[in-house]
Amino acid sequence: MKRPTQHVPEMAWNAWGDPAAAQELDAATRQLIVETLGISSAAPARVTEAALALRPSALPGKALTALAEVVGVEHVHTDEPTRLRHTGGKSTPDLLRRRAGEVAEAPDAVLTPAGHDEVQGILDVCAQHGIAVVPFGGGTSVVGGVEPFRGDFPAVISLDLRRLDALLALDEESGTATLEAGLRTPEAEELLGAEGHTLGHFPQSFEFASIGGYAATRSSGQFSAGYGRFDAMVTALKVATPRGTVTLDRGPATAAGPDLRQLFLGSEGVFGVITEVTVRVRRVPESRVEESWAFPTFAAGTAAVRELAQAGGLPTAIRISDETETFINAAIAGGQAPEGCQSVVHFEGSAAQVERRRSEVAEVLERHGARRIASESAQTWRRSRFTAPYLRDSLLDAGVLAETLETVTSWSGLHELRESVTRALTENLPQESGSPVVYCHLSHAYHSGASLYFTVAADATDDPQGRWAVAKRAASDAIAAAGGSITHHHAVGMDHRPWMEAEIGPLGVEVLAAVKRTLDPSGILNPGKLIPEDV
Amino acid sequence: MKRPTQHVPEMAWNAWGDPAAAQELDAATRQLIVETLGISSAAPARVTEAALALRPSALPGKALTALAEVVGVEHVHTDEPTRLRHTGGKSTPDLLRRRAGEVAEAPDAVLTPAGHDEVQGILDVCAQHGIAVVPFGGGTSVVGGVEPFRGDFPAVISLDLRRLDALLALDEESGTATLEAGLRTPEAEELLGAEGHTLGHFPQSFEFASIGGYAATRSSGQFSAGYGRFDAMVTALKVATPRGTVTLDRGPATAAGPDLRQLFLGSEGVFGVITEVTVRVRRVPESRVEESWAFPTFAAGTAAVRELAQAGGLPTAIRISDETETFINAAIAGGQAPEGCQSVVHFEGSAAQVERRRSEVAEVLERHGARRIASESAQTWRRSRFTAPYLRDSLLDAGVLAETLETVTSWSGLHELRESVTRALTENLPQESGSPVVYCHLSHAYHSGASLYFTVAADATDDPQGRWAVAKRAASDAIAAAGGSITHHHAVGMDHRPWMEAEIGPLGVEVLAAVKRTLDPSGILNPGKLIPEDV
Repeated sequence: MKRPTQHVPEMAWNAWGDPAAAQELDAATRQLIVETLGISSAAPARVTEAALALRPSALPGKALTALAEVVGVEHVHTDEPTRLRHTGGKSTPDLLRRRAGEVAEAPDAVLTPAGHDEVQGILDVCAQHGIAVVPFGGGTSVVGGVEPFRGDFPAVISLDLRRLDALLALDEESGTATLEAGLRTPEAEELLGAEGHTLGHFPQSFEFASIGGYAATRSSGQFSAGYGRFDAMVTALKVATPRGTVTLDRGPATAAGPDLRQLFLGSEGVFGVITEVTVRVRRVPESRVEESWAFPTFAAGTAAVRELAQAGGLPTAIRISDETETFINAAIAGGQAPEGCQSVVHFEGSAAQVERRRSEVAEVLERHGARRIASESAQTWRRSRFTAPYLRDSLLDAGVLAETLETVTSWSGLHELRESVTRALTENLPQESGSPVVYCHLSHAYHSGASLYFTVAADATDDPQGRWAVAKRAASDAIAAAGGSITHHHAVGMDHRPWMEAEIGPLGVEVLAAVKRTLDPSGILNPGKLIPEDV
Repeated sequence: MKRPTQHVPEMAWNAWGDPAAAQELDAATRQLIVETLGISSAAPARVTEAALALRPSALPGKALTALAEVVGVEHVHTDEPTRLRHTGGKSTPDLLRRRAGEVAEAPDAVLTPAGHDEVQGILDVCAQHGIAVVPFGGGTSVVGGVEPFRGDFPAVISLDLRRLDALLALDEESGTATLEAGLRTPEAEELLGAEGHTLGHFPQSFEFASIGGYAATRSSGQFSAGYGRFDAMVTALKVATPRGTVTLDRGPATAAGPDLRQLFLGSEGVFGVITEVTVRVRRVPESRVEESWAFPTFAAGTAAVRELAQAGGLPTAIRISDETETFINAAIAGGQAPEGCQSVVHFEGSAAQVERRRSEVAEVLERHGARRIASESAQTWRRSRFTAPYLRDSLLDAGVLAETLETVTSWSGLHELRESVTRALTENLPQESGSPVVYCHLSHAYHSGASLYFTVAADATDDPQGRWAVAKRAASDAIAAAGGSITHHHAVGMDHRPWMEAEIGPLGVEVLAAVKRTLDPSGILNPGKLIPEDV
């Protein structure tokens, strides 16, 4: 068993990421944005931490005593700063609420157990005392997945898994590692890297998100084409449920009935708390190369990616920005945008593999009209690929409503879906002057389809929360109507729950509810998430 | 919508496959086998069809009338020949029972609906009348998956899906086809081939097995390394359940909760009847090449396959026989066995892809001590890869107890598992003279592990059923004890059900039972399969 030497910093309570890494827009950029987007008013000042009023902890004394017996009294946190930092995730609505001082819904306590058995012990106590439990990994959810919603329970705890941070086993022959769920990706990479391995999972939330969170939300990293989605990496799971422990570990593929791993992957803490995850790992690659390309149109780019995906020839990563995203990315980086649609292509492997794959991919891209451009934009992307959420905070400061959403569908449905989502967002963000900006990229491709990731920037007005609620609903309805999935890698949480019935049908919802009742009969686990009510 | 022009022949009621394709051992081979294996007595004569006594159909008249209203009276079959041909699958115990005339458990009727809506109508009638329903695709199960077991119900029908035989849609852009569940693989390949596509799914049961059966049992074909397991090919499912229809179709990958497709894949008809399957299809490859290699040892072969799998460099198929299988395959083909362990390697793709991949694979195989041998053995394998089950019937005729079983585990557990299963089988098939032969091959490889496929040949004695039951139980216990899965691609059925609790734990079993109760509250669907009782 090994533990990391360095831990990730605590995130800001009212913004993304490490407070020390916050960015500020320079005055000229800010002015340009205000004019371009038609910003109508200055953003309201952020409420300071000192001015907040959390409601007193409602955790009953008997429960507190029982929980302290499980984890030790020093791991039951009822202080306000800790509770505040577990008051939900990092969606734009989350941040808007916190900026406005709406933090009454803080959890009544934060628990930091040390391992599977302590997690199991916490669930036993909470089931007995009727206390809601919200599993908390990196706290990076952008869909309300870690909202400390108590439902009908008198109290709710946030179950912070940060002390489950061990590399429990490394099976080099089988190419798998067993990781505790609370490990953040940089910590996991430190431990695996010391043995010459990597997970290869690099979502935008990389710096803060946790292994258990990836499993519970079916995360997908920027190198998904090369390393696979997180759900595809998992070979075994250990899950604590109010009914006891579930262990699923029978090799890489089996015909022994339904794949129950696939029932816990994406279960978002409503069936149990994932405490240990066995994942496939790869040798740290010998060579890494990034290229920049420009396609004449977004459709040409998607056609090229489709051809590569269907021929089994995808590079480690390939992303294609539409014209608007291409322009804006260049503007942010302070450079000149290429004509058309920019594409970043990333290769990893042995030097020979990388060189061969580069020439094969180049042949396909060129056939679809793409041309190589200076690789600076690829390097910019690589440097800045985890920083976009910091930029969002700066935009919110400038009175901009900025948010993202994403979906996935078949290749044949991709362009219609893109158009209808863009239209839904644009039409539902009317503003006095200027107009909202909506753009997208394709960054995860499969044989039969691909994801689309949309970014929106608009005038926040004096009701950004209400304004985004309308636009988000319209975009989600458009996704459902077009046959796309409500989420490719952000998960469901509270925010996408209303679209789950469209996603899996009423019987599918009943199946989830039946599994929930079996494993969590009193319903203490992560209330209000994933499964629509009234089933 | 398109339908095939040619249908597969009806299988023999008491043997594998097309009666016209039955093989007989020549006298010399038979004598050699008798001596080598120490066969103690001639096999009992097969009971003739005329001598059988099926119990009269117990289908209540009201139910029969209602079912006839759904499918048309000509599609409700209560004649003895049809009922007989739906009396279970094709495991060795199945065949031994039928040879002995033990066919009392025939279904009370066989229904042949025409499409999803008629299947749904049948389930509605059967739920109302309390009649058990056993979905029947190709009838190739070797684990008791289509046994017409009625449980506590007064009657049981076999729901034969052969008339669900349409290619419903081909989405060339997305590389997917929507197939009705009753299509047999040759029929599906005819329909797809006419459009230049292939499914690439070639299990040993290829000639008879059905698309729905593949989905319901998580089948894996001989080219799984190139085309994927069947469960990995599926992008959408339509399922008729006693509670109504479930449709799961939201693109190639999603984070919208647990993947419910993975709950119906492998559900073996206990949750519902899969009626339509959308699968990814590939362009018919330009080039196909087979090679034969010989490894010095089985361990050298598995090490080479492991290296290829972990580097993402597997050919379309690679199988490695152990020394005994190498010897026996050569003997059956009438040739000379190579020294060591034979390996068949198969490549598909464009001519350029195949040539490049061949040289890359050759480099790895040679580094592990393999040498190229004449390709005849690969060609023999290709010609005979669907015929082994016919050989089993000839062996049963010669007084040989012949059967196969399979498992999957991690690379680090592979050799220990192989040894313990071999020991369990050998020790539990004691015989007066000679000794049983147990051998295996590796034919499905993944990043973190691989399958092992065992063949057993022993003296049948006068109680082959009892003898096999003991050996099978010992082998299954050995698999469970070693941490392997009870099945890599044969599924669970009735035969592997006792090991499901070891596989997924008691809570996993409860989860399956809860899903079952939700979708099939009266429990009419495929009683006695998959889910252990008393939960």
